[in-house]
Amino acid sequence: MSSASVTLEKIVALCKRRGFVFPAAEIYGGLNGIYDFGPLGVLLKENIKKAWLQSLCNDKGEVVQLDGSLLGSHAMWTASGHTENFHDPMVDCLNCKHRYRSDHVDLKKACPHCGKLQWTEPRNFNMMFQTHLGAAADQAALAYLRPETAQSVFVNFKQVISTSRVKIPFGIAQVGKAFRNEITPRQFLFRMREFEQMELEWFCTPEQANDFFHFWQEKRLAFYATIGLQKENIRIHKHEGHELSHYSKQTHDVEYQFPFGWKELEGIADRGDFDLSQHTKHSGKELAVYDEATKQSYTPHVVECSVGVDRLFLALFSEAYKEDTMDGELRTVLALNPRIAPIKAAFLPLTKKQTDKMIALYHTIQQHTSYAVQFDESGSIGKRYRRQDEIGTPFCITYDFESDTDQCVTIRHRDTAQQERIAIEQITTYLAQYIQ
Amino acid sequence: MSSASVTLEKIVALCKRRGFVFPAAEIYGGLNGIYDFGPLGVLLKENIKKAWLQSLCNDKGEVVQLDGSLLGSHAMWTASGHTENFHDPMVDCLNCKHRYRSDHVDLKKACPHCGKLQWTEPRNFNMMFQTHLGAAADQAALAYLRPETAQSVFVNFKQVISTSRVKIPFGIAQVGKAFRNEITPRQFLFRMREFEQMELEWFCTPEQANDFFHFWQEKRLAFYATIGLQKENIRIHKHEGHELSHYSKQTHDVEYQFPFGWKELEGIADRGDFDLSQHTKHSGKELAVYDEATKQSYTPHVVECSVGVDRLFLALFSEAYKEDTMDGELRTVLALNPRIAPIKAAFLPLTKKQTDKMIALYHTIQQHTSYAVQFDESGSIGKRYRRQDEIGTPFCITYDFESDTDQCVTIRHRDTAQQERIAIEQITTYLAQYIQ
Repeated sequence: MSSASVTLEKIVALCKRRGFVFPAAEIYGGLNGIYDFGPLGVLLKENIKKAWLQSLCNDKGEVVQLDGSLLGSHAMWTASGHTENFHDPMVDCLNCKHRYRSDHVDLKKACPHCGKLQWTEPRNFNMMFQTHLGAAADQAALAYLRPETAQSVFVNFKQVISTSRVKIPFGIAQVGKAFRNEITPRQFLFRMREFEQMELEWFCTPEQANDFFHFWQEKRLAFYATIGLQKENIRIHKHEGHELSHYSKQTHDVEYQFPFGWKELEGIADRGDFDLSQHTKHSGKELAVYDEATKQSYTPHVVECSVGVDRLFLALFSEAYKEDTMDGELRTVLALNPRIAPIKAAFLPLTKKQTDKMIALYHTIQQHTSYAVQFDESGSIGKRYRRQDEIGTPFCITYDFESDTDQCVTIRHRDTAQQERIAIEQITTYLAQYIQ
Repeated sequence: MSSASVTLEKIVALCKRRGFVFPAAEIYGGLNGIYDFGPLGVLLKENIKKAWLQSLCNDKGEVVQLDGSLLGSHAMWTASGHTENFHDPMVDCLNCKHRYRSDHVDLKKACPHCGKLQWTEPRNFNMMFQTHLGAAADQAALAYLRPETAQSVFVNFKQVISTSRVKIPFGIAQVGKAFRNEITPRQFLFRMREFEQMELEWFCTPEQANDFFHFWQEKRLAFYATIGLQKENIRIHKHEGHELSHYSKQTHDVEYQFPFGWKELEGIADRGDFDLSQHTKHSGKELAVYDEATKQSYTPHVVECSVGVDRLFLALFSEAYKEDTMDGELRTVLALNPRIAPIKAAFLPLTKKQTDKMIALYHTIQQHTSYAVQFDESGSIGKRYRRQDEIGTPFCITYDFESDTDQCVTIRHRDTAQQERIAIEQITTYLAQYIQ
């Protein structure tokens, strides 16, 4: 099944049924565009972030990390242009008060909700969440939840370069939450109000920017291939002049074929010196660097690679979700790359007689590998296999009647259901070759 | 130097100088009680979280993770009692408009800022940050930034237990941001407006709660010992009747001797069935579980262990910060446990002649271990040692004139400055014995 033929409904249902993702505080009715991640969702997200960080290693320059605050000042978000420009156009229906993005409805036609044709004029709605810092509710204390992680990097550029002894070219990577007050959140994890980004800001000389733009595009495509997204579900969309953001010299979107169509997964942008120059202007702090070779100061250029953790989560789920028939029964399989899979191996005693031995083995492997593993003894072995298939566990290990004698276990592969017998002392090495 | 004799000023200065912690968006003047974490701060926080998660492993029951949303609804935070009770008492000076916590100033005396005696009546100030979800700013869309992570766990209890096949007793662990609009944030990372918590909610039968309360207290104290907090800087403060929160049957604080005195590092509380019962009442959803043995339903009791990531960061820094004299010079050393230290090893060529060999070795170790390591060739070897001492790097590895011949390197220990010579092929094993 290709990702285009899986339905979003099936993905949402599996996420909920197996504890990957729940509507936020569902017992209180949930919150539109906001989700809580359950035990398997946390593990999957962790694996995604870890793989992303590892993929930034390169032989051109160092990559260091930053973790900026989620709350930011009015001054900072004005400098970045967000208080003025970060908005969506909206209209209200005067009859039923329903609100829409004006670019999503045809204003010549009636309201899809109540059927009347009584629109307000379209107007702009700023998508940043506002709050107030401190007990006094005056203008000075106005603050915003960050709508992107990138600005935290730019405003800390000088602090990082002066304390970390990095030299251009180098990168600052950040993984963290961001918030957008979407008028109409939709498509599950695709357009959320509270989401998580993984952004790399790569600082280089103006002359290097174009080469690095292409260097990083290649690296990013290679990353998606290694974590299991098929080539035919990935394409590059080049922004033409009218699509380009005000800050961008060139932008390529990495698009993925989601169940609801081709959509942006990652944006790769040559931002020039726009951000550092803006912050120099607004803060009055010099963010240029001195080049020993040319004896001149210059403002570095930035190549940005920005991907949503949640979008990548959804892409991986879309890609991995498969249904097949096994032993005459419909089977759901989440064919995740073993590196990304939340649970690496399940330890299943064939009968209750093997329980103690299996628990001991399970604990040993857990301690020696730090892999997330599961022990399960409830239900028939077939049912237990199906459960593990559905949550993407690549290996099921069974201790059986002969294991005491031959000191071997059976390892079953998720995708093929094929089994092989290996020595107990080989388990760690065996798993490592797939997972590391 | 014991932690009580380090000043907070020295810690703040080192954090800023070496890129651990910066005031949030400092180029715009910072934000009171909010910080950005630099490259070394990110690594230190990661190591703290990883060690905490590992420390929850136990032979009594499983621990799974949850990652709840930061934005929560009015309904949820009303059920938890926070919209009504989560406040601090405040007063204003009518003359200069300065605002104080009324329990922090003597209202019979003049304003510490302007010297006039003109206080308003004390009144309550709710510490939750408010915002609005969606374009319509009506009451239904009122939302809060969570002031603690615990409630995310309680509202998802049913979802987790019904999808993860965990059985009581078991725990749900969560690491994540929380926000409190403190009237007077203070003491650097101790009382922040945006901070991070690590919380374990342990669900058990009413009969087990008291035993588990003590079980977890022992486990938590053992954890602090293994990551390097000295016994004499840790004590238990038992909440007496009048100190107990409305939800708590018993609470013990783990207090640490910070540079500014004994303060709460972690709270361990027997919360009874308060939380699940409250959420059952307000949501109308049954959160009781069925006991196969007694054939009865009951509401599980909760033992909570709650610690601040940032507070533990500050405690570890306070404990590790030392000054001594070496080669006639004052030396600053951050004597962090190697497991917690942000950089595990630094690779320092003795002269430029060894640069290539050292870089190759640095890359090899990086790839084989996934440890955060540094390469540094700038400045005298003595200066480079001091730099690594100050950021807490436990091992400095030097490639020298003889290394080509004997295939050995010199390893210098941070705390003692003692050196030993070991075979290059032994480096990974050598480091692992201290770090894992």
